[in-house]
Amino acid sequence: MLSHITIVLVGTTHPGNIGAVARAMKNMQMTNLRLVAPKIFPSADATSRASGADDILSRATVCDTLREAIADCQVVFGASARSRTISWPELTPRECVTEIFEKHAGEKIAIVFGREHSGLTNEELDMCRYLLHIPCNPAFSSLNLAAAVQVVCYELFVAAGSAQRKAIGDRGETPLATAEQMESFYDHLYQTLIDIDFTQADKSQSIMRRLRRIYNRIELDTKEVDILRGILRMSQGHKKSQKQSS
Amino acid sequence: MLSHITIVLVGTTHPGNIGAVARAMKNMQMTNLRLVAPKIFPSADATSRASGADDILSRATVCDTLREAIADCQVVFGASARSRTISWPELTPRECVTEIFEKHAGEKIAIVFGREHSGLTNEELDMCRYLLHIPCNPAFSSLNLAAAVQVVCYELFVAAGSAQRKAIGDRGETPLATAEQMESFYDHLYQTLIDIDFTQADKSQSIMRRLRRIYNRIELDTKEVDILRGILRMSQGHKKSQKQSS
Repeated sequence: MLSHITIVLVGTTHPGNIGAVARAMKNMQMTNLRLVAPKIFPSADATSRASGADDILSRATVCDTLREAIADCQVVFGASARSRTISWPELTPRECVTEIFEKHAGEKIAIVFGREHSGLTNEELDMCRYLLHIPCNPAFSSLNLAAAVQVVCYELFVAAGSAQRKAIGDRGETPLATAEQMESFYDHLYQTLIDIDFTQADKSQSIMRRLRRIYNRIELDTKEVDILRGILRMSQGHKKSQKQSS
Repeated sequence: MLSHITIVLVGTTHPGNIGAVARAMKNMQMTNLRLVAPKIFPSADATSRASGADDILSRATVCDTLREAIADCQVVFGASARSRTISWPELTPRECVTEIFEKHAGEKIAIVFGREHSGLTNEELDMCRYLLHIPCNPAFSSLNLAAAVQVVCYELFVAAGSAQRKAIGDRGETPLATAEQMESFYDHLYQTLIDIDFTQADKSQSIMRRLRRIYNRIELDTKEVDILRGILRMSQGHKKSQKQSS
């Protein structure tokens, strides 16, 4: 029931935390772990804290970038401890599992957790469709990494138990775009905005974040991405024609 | 909301786990910790793993027996990893918090967690009104002590209603675009698609339907409509420049 869900840890400093995460995952029947640029891995500390969940560690994939780690995933959740200045769809773990089992059944899911001290960067959160926030004491809100993963995996396990009793409906539609397809779309959109002089390369960060917020909400399918990229190509084409004719 | 609930740890071997429990509790706004015959306490390991929750540790009461630790409590839950031969009311954490807030509101509650390797003895469980069992992988069911406390305190915190949950798509102050603003946007989009030669006037019905389907899903706010129309204007601008220059 949970084999389509991947836990991604970004830039973990302490290998013991990676081991504790593996244990928390296995306790809740989760198996897929991906590590983005861990400081130390593999490590005896990780194996020791895994307390028998070393099969999760030995199967874990190590990637250089978050983009690579989530490339094949269709829905990406990013754990966030703090409120952001730009508002973004933010879900509790319980809302998150409802999304996964009711709205995104059968799709490949990634749940991304950031560094122990600083979490995920804004650029990394930009790649996530939803922010995931664990309700907690506002005066003492930093959960241990493995504790945060434990809470989320526990909610997934409980929800999977209830979901097994429900028939899963097929969306009956074109599959959702993967994270990699969306990133390529954003690259293309960014280039187009520069080509049509809507923005300049060094001034586009806040507008791109704003546009990601818009398009992440839509949950584009693969055909729709093709259509939008077709429109971008035509917009760019005019720029080229214009330059050639001037 | 949670000040009437006490976490009791029985016979904890590793002081680091006591610290991690304190952190998990404080994350969820729980403050009352009692320790029954801990092997080592106080300890630098405990303080280190508490990561700032040392106020919980310094206020923690140390008792010789479970009986003493739960003396003033009216309802006692005992965490249990394994099924018992003797049948006993066994609750999940979610059922447990429902009991606490609906059936036992205002009563003093204790939630008791046993030793890292062997849990609570049958004699200790006899002092509990309910068994508390965290749903988990039957093939790998031993949660780390602090992870188990984290899950239970998280359920308590969520149930206590302290969680400041945000609705999906909560976007702050900017109002959603009106139907009229959306129709103007679609008119503008339609004209732009013709201007950039993406489509022709008489062939655009199906593509416009497709695009409406995309943008209706987003629930754009008024600022976002302004941004998208700004992009459309720039795309059109190139068409005009191109025509003038040719």
